[in-house]
Amino acid sequence: MIAAESLLADQREAMVAELKSFIEIPSVSTDPAHAGDVQRAAEFVAKQLVRAGLSDVRIHPTEGHPIVTASWRHRSDRPTILIYGHFDVQPPDPLAAWQSPPFVPVIRNNRLYGRGASDDKGPLLIPIKVVAALLAAEAELPVNVVFLLEGEEEIGSAHLGAFIEKHRALLSADFVLSADGAQWRPNFPSVITGSRGLCALEVSVESARKDLHSGRHGGAVANPIQKLVDLLASLHRGDGAIAVTGFYDRVIEPSIEERQRVAAIAFDEAEYLASIGAEASVGEVGYSLIERNWLRPTLEFNGIYGGYTGPGKKTVIPSWAGAKITCRLVPDQNPVEIAECIVRHLRQGIGPDARLSIHVEPSGAWPYTIRDDHRGLILAKEILAQVTGQTPVLVRMGATIPIGGLFKQLLGIDTIFFSFATADEDYHAPNEFFRLSSLGTGLKAWTQYLHALGRQSCGPS
Amino acid sequence: MIAAESLLADQREAMVAELKSFIEIPSVSTDPAHAGDVQRAAEFVAKQLVRAGLSDVRIHPTEGHPIVTASWRHRSDRPTILIYGHFDVQPPDPLAAWQSPPFVPVIRNNRLYGRGASDDKGPLLIPIKVVAALLAAEAELPVNVVFLLEGEEEIGSAHLGAFIEKHRALLSADFVLSADGAQWRPNFPSVITGSRGLCALEVSVESARKDLHSGRHGGAVANPIQKLVDLLASLHRGDGAIAVTGFYDRVIEPSIEERQRVAAIAFDEAEYLASIGAEASVGEVGYSLIERNWLRPTLEFNGIYGGYTGPGKKTVIPSWAGAKITCRLVPDQNPVEIAECIVRHLRQGIGPDARLSIHVEPSGAWPYTIRDDHRGLILAKEILAQVTGQTPVLVRMGATIPIGGLFKQLLGIDTIFFSFATADEDYHAPNEFFRLSSLGTGLKAWTQYLHALGRQSCGPS
Repeated sequence: MIAAESLLADQREAMVAELKSFIEIPSVSTDPAHAGDVQRAAEFVAKQLVRAGLSDVRIHPTEGHPIVTASWRHRSDRPTILIYGHFDVQPPDPLAAWQSPPFVPVIRNNRLYGRGASDDKGPLLIPIKVVAALLAAEAELPVNVVFLLEGEEEIGSAHLGAFIEKHRALLSADFVLSADGAQWRPNFPSVITGSRGLCALEVSVESARKDLHSGRHGGAVANPIQKLVDLLASLHRGDGAIAVTGFYDRVIEPSIEERQRVAAIAFDEAEYLASIGAEASVGEVGYSLIERNWLRPTLEFNGIYGGYTGPGKKTVIPSWAGAKITCRLVPDQNPVEIAECIVRHLRQGIGPDARLSIHVEPSGAWPYTIRDDHRGLILAKEILAQVTGQTPVLVRMGATIPIGGLFKQLLGIDTIFFSFATADEDYHAPNEFFRLSSLGTGLKAWTQYLHALGRQSCGPS
Repeated sequence: MIAAESLLADQREAMVAELKSFIEIPSVSTDPAHAGDVQRAAEFVAKQLVRAGLSDVRIHPTEGHPIVTASWRHRSDRPTILIYGHFDVQPPDPLAAWQSPPFVPVIRNNRLYGRGASDDKGPLLIPIKVVAALLAAEAELPVNVVFLLEGEEEIGSAHLGAFIEKHRALLSADFVLSADGAQWRPNFPSVITGSRGLCALEVSVESARKDLHSGRHGGAVANPIQKLVDLLASLHRGDGAIAVTGFYDRVIEPSIEERQRVAAIAFDEAEYLASIGAEASVGEVGYSLIERNWLRPTLEFNGIYGGYTGPGKKTVIPSWAGAKITCRLVPDQNPVEIAECIVRHLRQGIGPDARLSIHVEPSGAWPYTIRDDHRGLILAKEILAQVTGQTPVLVRMGATIPIGGLFKQLLGIDTIFFSFATADEDYHAPNEFFRLSSLGTGLKAWTQYLHALGRQSCGPS
């Protein structure tokens, strides 16, 4: 056992207490009211990095939320890894659905419940604690590291690109090891070989300048909710495919090998549907459930609103109605291009009787894939097998981690996702939790990964 | 000039102050939180009736909001009219759209702004003040009157039917003169010959038992907003007609005479559209704007909701989404039957991948029409012509006044709508107002109507 591992085992209780304090900070990046909390979360991780023994810890302000960096580069003969994670969280609503308040972390059944516990505060604390323990036990690290921790992951890493471009030297590394990402299923170690991209739009339809009495005006003018539902309904075809011209133009069809690999994965669809309380699996005809989630793009409605939504009825034709849309993209879809296709489709469909306004979120993300034979990826598979005693599955993610594409584009390096969150931990939903058992597994895996990577560069031992 | 008229002219300022106090009571009947305010509004009108000189003023509790009655029956040789009005109001939201707070009445440009000013507090105060002035000036009324004022008009008069059935003797009258209703356009006197009926539903679609991350689950399961918009979009055809089987089965096509009468009305469509800030008039193909609003049924979406609606984006597949629907009905559509047709349509459309729940509001209303040669209607036309100097137009209302059908069914009597609200006064919308000039016209018209009706029964003079 590596000396740092026993150190970490001793610190477990204190570490959970620290993680709780971290979760108590409601660092909701999407809500301007929580900007101060995102700053506090940045200060929290900065303090952790200082205490770990890193000397050049910095909180960089951006036009949005801050970015925290720290590095340890004292072994020019060893490779450098860039450790990525984020300290912002998703909004907690619907609040009423939480069993305990989102920002009051509580342990139930060896799971730590709270917004951000799994995405990404728990997993992010792991490499910080591992680096701290290695420095404490060995006075040096087996490889060089640079931490890059951001506060805008949940809103599309809007200012990360510009930051990376400005700090290429600070961030130079052989590859990225990301504390964000997720194990695909509990007790089912996995290595991510790709993630979907994202683009987001908000659309609003206005038919009159004011709310109208549905008796006095009903039948005379357009109902904006009717216009909106007609428009939104036109975005999908009856067979579940997306009806937007140009949407599939750049989509790379999954290879036969990839489809065979997916088909070989043990996956109980009935159990999955029961776990989320869904009646049936639906989507694009001609693809399996996992294929649709990993290898095919989607267009989802995330929110819809308009008119009277209080108790009882109100006989109103509202002035306007709106909806939030996001798409998950696969190689080689371009988020900007896809948003443009959707805007064109909506503008063509609106007709002369209503006004359409569309806001395209600037924070699109490219889809990402990595070669199966990348040395960092192979090592991740080996360490996971060693730590869990199981052979990891290669998975493509249905979710988006914008940094995969970003690091590739801006620094030319690949990203290995080495997160110990698990995909069923209800992040982005009420009752998010982090398995405390994953904390132990993660601490062990990161310690061994850094050691093994260090050993690799010394040649065969 | 009738003596009561000059009395009323002297009281104008005090009357506006009283109307302001009335509007200050936020008697929103649809919101249980305002039940106490609806009660206060009942007490306000009861006090007004007592001060008018009526001796048997009563506030009757119901299972919902109270009903207020009062009567004066001292001339058995004269006809009896039942005076109807309501003291509840629509909810004020969206609050942000009000130029001044909804329950802080303010006069701007000789208009009194505030929720309920036009619907129905201003118009309701008129007959009370007229009766008070007639009793003060003449110590008796030209006809017998019974007031029936309710607190549930805005929620479909849910308990009025049962109340009428229990109090037939108290309410016996020759016909109803209603302070609710509206003049069709400013400076364009009109008499209502019919109103549309109403049925209301709330529909909700659930696809999973919890909110899901759109990356982890997108493509695998149904999006309830997508299911909802597909369902809602299926309720109308491309030509604007309603696509629900059975919906038009009992609809009486407007007669050639009726269509000619409508076509003869001076109506500037461009001006109308400009007044509400709409680009174009749309609806069922084959009917004019006024025909669609008066003579044809509609199916309107009044509200839609689901998923994340806060600032920014949230990559969630919500657990559920819902919408509020109301239909305006024309003779001889049955509100219960129409709701059943819609429920059937929705149930057939939902598919096996989501759960549908539908709540049909119990407070449906029948459409209503009155014969053109009803003596109360003819008198209304004469008095309006006399007071305004213009020939009134016969209009069918696009709106619903459930009491038309209710009084016809339960008491066998017709209803003359004699309201001095005007249809453009933004009731059911932000910035509702009542023209103070209408107060003067209304007071004059009601005084003269009661006098003329009394004279009629004495035979030719």
